[in-house]
Amino acid sequence: MKRRQIKLGLFLMGVGHHIAAWRHPDVRPEWCEDFAFFRRLAEIAEQGKLDMLFVSDGLAIEPLSHPAEIVRLEPFTLLAALAAVTSRIGLAGTASTTYNEPFHIARKFSSLDHISRGRAAWNIVTSYYEEEAYNFSQTAHLEHHLRYERAREFVDVVNGLWDSWDDEALIRDPSTGIYVQTEKWRPLHYRGTYFSVRGPLNSSRSPQGKPVLIQAGSSKDGVRFAARVAEVVFTAQSTLADAQRFYQTVKQEAARSGRDPDHLLIMPGVAPYIGRTEREAQEQYEQLQTLIKPEVGLAFLSDYLGGIDFSGYSLDDPLPDDIPETNGNQSRRQLIIDLARRERLTIRQLYERIAGARGHFTIMGTPEQVADQLEQWFRQGAADGFNLMFPYYPHGLLLFVEHVIPILQKRGLFRRDYEGTTLRDHLELPMPNPIRV
Amino acid sequence: MKRRQIKLGLFLMGVGHHIAAWRHPDVRPEWCEDFAFFRRLAEIAEQGKLDMLFVSDGLAIEPLSHPAEIVRLEPFTLLAALAAVTSRIGLAGTASTTYNEPFHIARKFSSLDHISRGRAAWNIVTSYYEEEAYNFSQTAHLEHHLRYERAREFVDVVNGLWDSWDDEALIRDPSTGIYVQTEKWRPLHYRGTYFSVRGPLNSSRSPQGKPVLIQAGSSKDGVRFAARVAEVVFTAQSTLADAQRFYQTVKQEAARSGRDPDHLLIMPGVAPYIGRTEREAQEQYEQLQTLIKPEVGLAFLSDYLGGIDFSGYSLDDPLPDDIPETNGNQSRRQLIIDLARRERLTIRQLYERIAGARGHFTIMGTPEQVADQLEQWFRQGAADGFNLMFPYYPHGLLLFVEHVIPILQKRGLFRRDYEGTTLRDHLELPMPNPIRV
Repeated sequence: MKRRQIKLGLFLMGVGHHIAAWRHPDVRPEWCEDFAFFRRLAEIAEQGKLDMLFVSDGLAIEPLSHPAEIVRLEPFTLLAALAAVTSRIGLAGTASTTYNEPFHIARKFSSLDHISRGRAAWNIVTSYYEEEAYNFSQTAHLEHHLRYERAREFVDVVNGLWDSWDDEALIRDPSTGIYVQTEKWRPLHYRGTYFSVRGPLNSSRSPQGKPVLIQAGSSKDGVRFAARVAEVVFTAQSTLADAQRFYQTVKQEAARSGRDPDHLLIMPGVAPYIGRTEREAQEQYEQLQTLIKPEVGLAFLSDYLGGIDFSGYSLDDPLPDDIPETNGNQSRRQLIIDLARRERLTIRQLYERIAGARGHFTIMGTPEQVADQLEQWFRQGAADGFNLMFPYYPHGLLLFVEHVIPILQKRGLFRRDYEGTTLRDHLELPMPNPIRV
Repeated sequence: MKRRQIKLGLFLMGVGHHIAAWRHPDVRPEWCEDFAFFRRLAEIAEQGKLDMLFVSDGLAIEPLSHPAEIVRLEPFTLLAALAAVTSRIGLAGTASTTYNEPFHIARKFSSLDHISRGRAAWNIVTSYYEEEAYNFSQTAHLEHHLRYERAREFVDVVNGLWDSWDDEALIRDPSTGIYVQTEKWRPLHYRGTYFSVRGPLNSSRSPQGKPVLIQAGSSKDGVRFAARVAEVVFTAQSTLADAQRFYQTVKQEAARSGRDPDHLLIMPGVAPYIGRTEREAQEQYEQLQTLIKPEVGLAFLSDYLGGIDFSGYSLDDPLPDDIPETNGNQSRRQLIIDLARRERLTIRQLYERIAGARGHFTIMGTPEQVADQLEQWFRQGAADGFNLMFPYYPHGLLLFVEHVIPILQKRGLFRRDYEGTTLRDHLELPMPNPIRV
């Protein structure tokens, strides 16, 4: 039997995940809209044999918290351009079910899957920010629970559209002149609460059968949704124990939904700070922290905590008791509150802790130490793989590919080369059943 | 003063514009979703120094008329992928104002303009087909006049979003830590009949200031709309006289709207059949005509003529008098009726005449003869350039680049090399005014 191996994604976000990354002397802030920069990162990641690269997204620039979220390249155009200049690495993009139409999303991912020859994945999100509503002729952001209701319908429609072509429907026989057998397609005639969609899709069944489905919500609604539809779950977990608990919960929920838990991979985010010594890694972290302007740190923190107003507090006060609720990212709000309470952090310490990776698992150390931590999470039931969030690019990625990947390979924990061509091949996820009308 | 030169676009549509192109022995029908095929066409077009390539689009596969419209790559993903493997040629994509949201469209074209370093153009359409409505939770296609009303609002919003960034708003000064001057952006707070959009766009002002705007509707509503907003007009004209009349009308209408008529380029479609002799070109045309199945030809014709039922007629009958109205492409319906009446065509002759290029100007002859015809239209006030529609790919494009382009260059009618890097440079269109708040 084949040995279980770690799956690795590269999480791209502007010039880096740390909110002060753009101020680092090795970085040019304009890179955030420079295709040549992303192309270089994709090439490095592919040299490192990573499973995929992943781009997050948002549909408004306020609240003005993370510079990487102000102006950025749009995921479909960025990923399609990267598809043309890479050959193996998976290409995962975020698209919101709250501010899109399922026909467009089904089609664009199918087209990306054709162009990349089987490397597309969709990270399904329901959108965090109230402000997105105002860019789409809405007066308010849909309530959290209803967003997931809409998301379930949305994904059903997208799956139906991807299934609307029988594998044998496109005859295209020049001798008879028959292009398509219309009796072998399956318009869905979907009628739901949010959508009515007839189909079929104007894109044939793509190389992966269906692009890979990724989900990143860790709230109760999010987990239930992921267990039902996702093949990969991205998640933010600060500690091994929390990650193990989350891993168990999702796998059990998947089994309860009648699915094989091995076909749902859990990939927590991880922010590695890599140095030749532990001290060097620590210094790298501290250098970035000194670049955070307090008002930016406070706005960033407030954004996750229901818009709390810190103006009556000193930076050295503990986190106040009374944190407003949010209609945004509910699981992340709780993670940050728990972190503050558990470690008795001041307000400044708290924003510094989330400035690098927004509460995701952070590792500082030598390549050996980073590999050790990843191995521990992987072996002890906390992760099937990791979504790598480097503080600034390309620095951390270069170090990881050059120094950490070879250690993981030596330990038999990571591939030495791609064994297949599609993202499903890399992730060892099954192809969807063929469609036969 | 610089001599006026012909502008040339390459109109991509499946494996070719002729409805039987996919049956031609030199063609593989699967190419219609094969990125390598489109990449090769783009590379040939760029070797020929063409201004741009253009992809049409649709959001439903019925009516089942042109095989190139059944399954195809989606324009944003296709053009972004082509942006990564070309360096000069313009990239024009179709997007409907009836079944999209302006924020998404403004953003994707801005992103494409960033990725391509200034080569993006948007072909604004209002959608022809009733059937598209059923894929977007609508029970009916918006009426022709209202589609244009919506389109005008849509383009106003998109222009407003592209103008939402002052050129100096993004400071990104690492020393002060100031990323953006929020007082220098201009959210639009647009409130109209169809859209309410706050902005600003989460994409900075792109290399062309704004992507180039193209419009292809030739109905009265279409011309008025084009004169107001378009920088390029694609149009179908069968004869020199019709093309001259259209050219005059649009240029006058543009002047009446207070615009410089030189900043609105008229580019009729043209379908060249190129042979070493006139006879060889004619044979090429006839070979394709023999590959049309009558039921496909009839369905294709009926599609433009309000869904007319030909079942009571023989193929050798003249076109019936009573042609139903259409809520689809109104100017094309009239063009086809006029063509049938003028040349007294039978039903079969009529579908054969439109099977190659849907009523667009068709030229058959030697490279010299093709160049002569283009020069005549260009010099006699019928065209500023042409949108080239080859019957099947890559054949006609290869011949055109190898044999017709050098003739046009020798006559001083076409560039010998790109003089600039952006599509605006190629088309000699002005940059939009800089934004200063």
